[in-house]
Amino acid sequence: MDSRGIIGSSLPRVDAVEKVTGMAIYGPDLKVPGMLFGKVLRSPLPHARILNVDTSKAERLPGVKAVATGKDFIARYGLIIQDQPCYCFDRVRYIGDPVAGVAAADLDTAEEALGLIKVDYEELPPVFDPLAAMEPHAPLVHEDLGSYWHGPVFFPVPGTNICNHFKLRRGNVEEGFQESDFIFEDTFTTPMVQHCHLEPHVSMAKFDPSGHVTIWSNTQHPYAVRREVARFLKLPTNHVRVVVTCVGGGFGGKVMLKVEPLCLVLAMKVKNFRPVKIMLTREEEFYASSVRHPTITTIKAGVRKDGTLMALKTRMVLDTGAYADLGPVVTRSVGISVTGPYKIPHVWADAYCVYTNKAIAGAFRGLGIPQLQWANDSMMDLLAEGVGMDPVEFRFKNALTEGDLSATGQTLHSVGIRECIRKAAEGIEWGKKTGKYRGKGMGTLYKMTQTPSSSSAFVKMSEDGSVEVLSSTVDMGQGSNTVLAQIAAEELGVEVRNVRVISPDTDVTPYDHGTASSRSTFYMGNAVKEAAADARRQLFEVAGEQLEVKPEDLEARGGFLFVKGGTGKGTPISAIRMGITYGKGKPIIGRGTFSVSEATLLDQETGQGANPSVFWQYGAQAAEVEVDPSTGKVEVLKIAAAHDLGRVINLLNCEQQVEGAVVTGVGITLMEELILQEGKPVNTNFGDYRIPTSLDVPEVASIFVEAAHKDGPYGAKGLGEGVLIPTSPAIGNAVYDAIGVRIHDLPITPEKILKALKEKGERER
Amino acid sequence: MDSRGIIGSSLPRVDAVEKVTGMAIYGPDLKVPGMLFGKVLRSPLPHARILNVDTSKAERLPGVKAVATGKDFIARYGLIIQDQPCYCFDRVRYIGDPVAGVAAADLDTAEEALGLIKVDYEELPPVFDPLAAMEPHAPLVHEDLGSYWHGPVFFPVPGTNICNHFKLRRGNVEEGFQESDFIFEDTFTTPMVQHCHLEPHVSMAKFDPSGHVTIWSNTQHPYAVRREVARFLKLPTNHVRVVVTCVGGGFGGKVMLKVEPLCLVLAMKVKNFRPVKIMLTREEEFYASSVRHPTITTIKAGVRKDGTLMALKTRMVLDTGAYADLGPVVTRSVGISVTGPYKIPHVWADAYCVYTNKAIAGAFRGLGIPQLQWANDSMMDLLAEGVGMDPVEFRFKNALTEGDLSATGQTLHSVGIRECIRKAAEGIEWGKKTGKYRGKGMGTLYKMTQTPSSSSAFVKMSEDGSVEVLSSTVDMGQGSNTVLAQIAAEELGVEVRNVRVISPDTDVTPYDHGTASSRSTFYMGNAVKEAAADARRQLFEVAGEQLEVKPEDLEARGGFLFVKGGTGKGTPISAIRMGITYGKGKPIIGRGTFSVSEATLLDQETGQGANPSVFWQYGAQAAEVEVDPSTGKVEVLKIAAAHDLGRVINLLNCEQQVEGAVVTGVGITLMEELILQEGKPVNTNFGDYRIPTSLDVPEVASIFVEAAHKDGPYGAKGLGEGVLIPTSPAIGNAVYDAIGVRIHDLPITPEKILKALKEKGERER
Repeated sequence: MDSRGIIGSSLPRVDAVEKVTGMAIYGPDLKVPGMLFGKVLRSPLPHARILNVDTSKAERLPGVKAVATGKDFIARYGLIIQDQPCYCFDRVRYIGDPVAGVAAADLDTAEEALGLIKVDYEELPPVFDPLAAMEPHAPLVHEDLGSYWHGPVFFPVPGTNICNHFKLRRGNVEEGFQESDFIFEDTFTTPMVQHCHLEPHVSMAKFDPSGHVTIWSNTQHPYAVRREVARFLKLPTNHVRVVVTCVGGGFGGKVMLKVEPLCLVLAMKVKNFRPVKIMLTREEEFYASSVRHPTITTIKAGVRKDGTLMALKTRMVLDTGAYADLGPVVTRSVGISVTGPYKIPHVWADAYCVYTNKAIAGAFRGLGIPQLQWANDSMMDLLAEGVGMDPVEFRFKNALTEGDLSATGQTLHSVGIRECIRKAAEGIEWGKKTGKYRGKGMGTLYKMTQTPSSSSAFVKMSEDGSVEVLSSTVDMGQGSNTVLAQIAAEELGVEVRNVRVISPDTDVTPYDHGTASSRSTFYMGNAVKEAAADARRQLFEVAGEQLEVKPEDLEARGGFLFVKGGTGKGTPISAIRMGITYGKGKPIIGRGTFSVSEATLLDQETGQGANPSVFWQYGAQAAEVEVDPSTGKVEVLKIAAAHDLGRVINLLNCEQQVEGAVVTGVGITLMEELILQEGKPVNTNFGDYRIPTSLDVPEVASIFVEAAHKDGPYGAKGLGEGVLIPTSPAIGNAVYDAIGVRIHDLPITPEKILKALKEKGERER
Repeated sequence: MDSRGIIGSSLPRVDAVEKVTGMAIYGPDLKVPGMLFGKVLRSPLPHARILNVDTSKAERLPGVKAVATGKDFIARYGLIIQDQPCYCFDRVRYIGDPVAGVAAADLDTAEEALGLIKVDYEELPPVFDPLAAMEPHAPLVHEDLGSYWHGPVFFPVPGTNICNHFKLRRGNVEEGFQESDFIFEDTFTTPMVQHCHLEPHVSMAKFDPSGHVTIWSNTQHPYAVRREVARFLKLPTNHVRVVVTCVGGGFGGKVMLKVEPLCLVLAMKVKNFRPVKIMLTREEEFYASSVRHPTITTIKAGVRKDGTLMALKTRMVLDTGAYADLGPVVTRSVGISVTGPYKIPHVWADAYCVYTNKAIAGAFRGLGIPQLQWANDSMMDLLAEGVGMDPVEFRFKNALTEGDLSATGQTLHSVGIRECIRKAAEGIEWGKKTGKYRGKGMGTLYKMTQTPSSSSAFVKMSEDGSVEVLSSTVDMGQGSNTVLAQIAAEELGVEVRNVRVISPDTDVTPYDHGTASSRSTFYMGNAVKEAAADARRQLFEVAGEQLEVKPEDLEARGGFLFVKGGTGKGTPISAIRMGITYGKGKPIIGRGTFSVSEATLLDQETGQGANPSVFWQYGAQAAEVEVDPSTGKVEVLKIAAAHDLGRVINLLNCEQQVEGAVVTGVGITLMEELILQEGKPVNTNFGDYRIPTSLDVPEVASIFVEAAHKDGPYGAKGLGEGVLIPTSPAIGNAVYDAIGVRIHDLPITPEKILKALKEKGERER
């Protein structure tokens, strides 16, 4: 079936009323009878051996129900590398590492008890700088790295701090440089930043005497949490239930396990199977949840004088902190995508994921590509300037097109980058100068999605034609419930408001890989589409018998059934007998799965192989900025954001995604940085760590390019993460255009601008 | 697939640990944040007009959050006849009819507030006796009966108190009597009895600002509650969520709507969308939930001297109290089954469901057949005695066999009654006299099931081969979760302990007609079987690709996959890739539906038609009793219970069903009676209303006859209700055998025995 006004239209969120009235139950709202409050004692040292933890005083405090330490449950978890203890039992590896937990009848008591726990440490030499951590005799954050289980597509280097080394070798990069007319080399860095979702991490865990455990969590990854918890508790998978609350923003910060293990160990220790809830404070959020990888990217690029890119040699170091979390995946992501959306015949790339004694870096909207494209698209402007070409023209010339081979050898399909470049430029009136200190710049994006992966869904129709969709996709504000409701409505021919999407709960909503990687519309959209089509087939079969029409001659829309090509006014679906009392017919239920399981193993030495991503997001943003040379302040006037998402499912939703991402992009470009001194974060509040306010929001023009994907639902791919990516280089390049200085290290603060202007003045003098 | 040790074995309950450790959440355990406590003001009068309800004082009581009266929500509900208000708005119709409700912060306040509500009534003439209620000028309990909606297979008589009149006309009954050698006529009665489930009715309701409502309830009928609430609230069906708690006994007392509407109206009135919970007291349970229909059954039967039954004329009056509830269904059930398990060529029957100003009678294990067979099997002994035959021989001779036509013209299949009669007689050493005041007697059963109806289920398999079954069947102690787990395990080839059956919740567990009518093993068993088979097909497809075997060559057992006919040790299902991270394959999920939608409309005037029941339960019980002629006390020594259930799924479960039902049967035969004086129940506690204790439990021999049903899962039909049915006539006939007196009116109390012995003595003198 294809669009009849549902797919592509601007429908309001299906969960809007619930959320604006404050009735949605977010993590912090979780309250169940008998609930205990958990608090976590965290390491004040970046690297130390734990000699002794004395909890006796804390245990005697009235109101304390349990005190847990690392010794209570010795196991390591990790979906990529099993390197992380629940509570530390041998060492602490960063300031913030959990050492003990307290469950008490109230929060004050739990906090008081933390102060009564005495920990003896033996300090160990820490390593903070990722480049230093890669040196031969650097202190090892994980001496046992070689003995940890790790996923099959990741390559830790035992005996080092490198927990993944991704290599890409294509063509002959030295030949490429020889064939080039110009060669440029430069280094770009990005700092540690925080997701800053307004809702902190909250989990609650409860054991049952029958050996089942229930975890409530505002996680993006209910099935991953279930699998990993079942594994380390040695339970059958179906003995672990993960119930997802409403999620108030995730951005990757709520993937994998976060607070769940800390709750679990406390829940094991309390009596009478009482549930234990832990909510991180805002301060803990900053340094003890997860952050975006700080990166150091050195690019050497060769280009012919006609502007043709010939060779690229990239070395990217990702500082993943004390535990791997999703760091190896981020590293693989940047390695595979190292060229950006550009055709380059000769590529040599090394991406390193490096342990340090700092806060854990994990997934964050864009999965490393914002950091990569900050470097890549800054470099593209340097190259364009070097060959004397307009940056847009230069990008357009080198941009990938349908059927091109990627750097890993994948034949690309659904490639909208050229149209994005053109439309973003148009959207900002590229080439038109509007003021002395104003400038325009462009950034692009090229982002893979999780492959292989799977989604599945159930659909059930009620006797009045209203519908429930059972899906484990987490709506964390991105609007997935609305999109999935639209798809089910479209397939079943009912109105969107008559579809309810049920909140994820691993007991009942079937398997989904997780809500991340901009994969939900594509994967879960397809699963829901198939489940709804399965239900529709049954509906038509039952209706066909009742209406004495062949099922294949029926079609449904707006809650009515019609004979194809007929002129009748239709039969309401509610008139179809579904086996509900006195009636004929049968219940209408459907199931759908969508899996991509192409061979995605790339060669360890060359990164060459088949299709590491089932689809690619493309996009380009053009920014106009104005710089105040006296204060160094950059004002972003406008962002024209053109994104190839395959197909728009909900226009309003897409516009909101773009606007939200651009604001985050402005934040990480101009202001955000989590500052650590000797491993200790110093700006862990919203006074000292600035994020954009409404006053920082530029004009945003959302432009959608629909390079339909053959396997996407109605052609759709994904949008969520991509939009964040081009914003930084677009602004950075616009700043250069405005005042002639290039900042290599995010964020572009007034201080850096003033310093660069001063240096430029000195050079020009 | 067929049995490999799972089907038919004695497996412990899958929910045993949860229940014996007290961790299961039953209705009374329900506690959610913000919950308010509701109490109900009930009518002290059996029939009256409500002139005024003054709630002003109650509303001013601190702690009271809402007071509701009939005027707050004027609507009538009822799945069979829409005759029942939430709170009475025009009249009260029995002592106990809800007049007002209070929601308060605590129970004491709610109770105190009830005392502050002032109701002005205008008394109306009540009618208590159902025969009087059928007289032409009797007071009408429902003057508007003619304007109420009712279900299509029920026949209320407007302008009377008859809310269903079922007629059966087969052959020519007058000719039948003419062809008979002996004609007997007698009348038998049964009293009002209570279900006495240990757990009282509990419901809680909560509205959301988005217009959704959640109802928690210990209901047997979640989907029926959902449908009816959606209807009277005028909401899309999927805006109503019914979550079923653990149910501590149902027996039919928790079908349809009970406390839910009372919660709903209060929940509508409270502020801030707080949930309101109502739990009935034990006293309310007795007179304000629902009871078993008191009945008056007059049978005229003709028999040839060789013992062949020729004609049956039955008039049965069922006293349904103030509202229809399931009364019309009970009436239809006895009408259709009027012959019992006997072949009778000429039948004339009228079954009347009659309103009176008394407690509401509804469904109760057996759906009227215990009352019918009390009469029928008492009559069979009278007939056998009349023609000088042994009662067992008489029954065997007249019993139905495979292929016989029922009284409604249905060709019967899976007819195990003869074997049941034979085995029950053997089980009690029929014919062997063991003591002077000892006697033996037999009763039988012939019980239909809800037809048409439907069930549906989802099944999902986790990556380790563990399984969840999503079903809306309510395990209220009968063990359905265990049976459904066995069926899923059997189909998927996994161990039963690796299957979890998820508790009913209409948001996620798909449609089921309801847990009643002994239909779950048959209907839901088939739905789960199909859903599991659907999942198995997918598993074999994925496994086949992985193992390089044709899917059709695979089989699964004990959690392993084998190549058919092979000798290998098998591949664990957990080794099959189900699309979970890094893997190929796809998630394994299945759906199944089972519907019977045969034409079951019987002719209104003759009761003739097609197949009113997809299967029939058969059984026979033989009782041995000892009567103390000095005290009149009857001791039941042994019950040999032989039941045709098609196929045993769980032997232990079936034995427990038999033992439990026999105990209830002993209770209603010997002691139970809810006594009303002028409509007012007087023995509403377990001191005055006696139920059996462990001292009253006879030896029970459980015998299972497996007349496999062609459409049942593995041949299974149902067992739950049937077992209750033969116990009363078996005991009654045994009492007659022991001491030569026949009691016509249940219960057989010592007083009645002594009186009958005295009368017998006087007659013989």
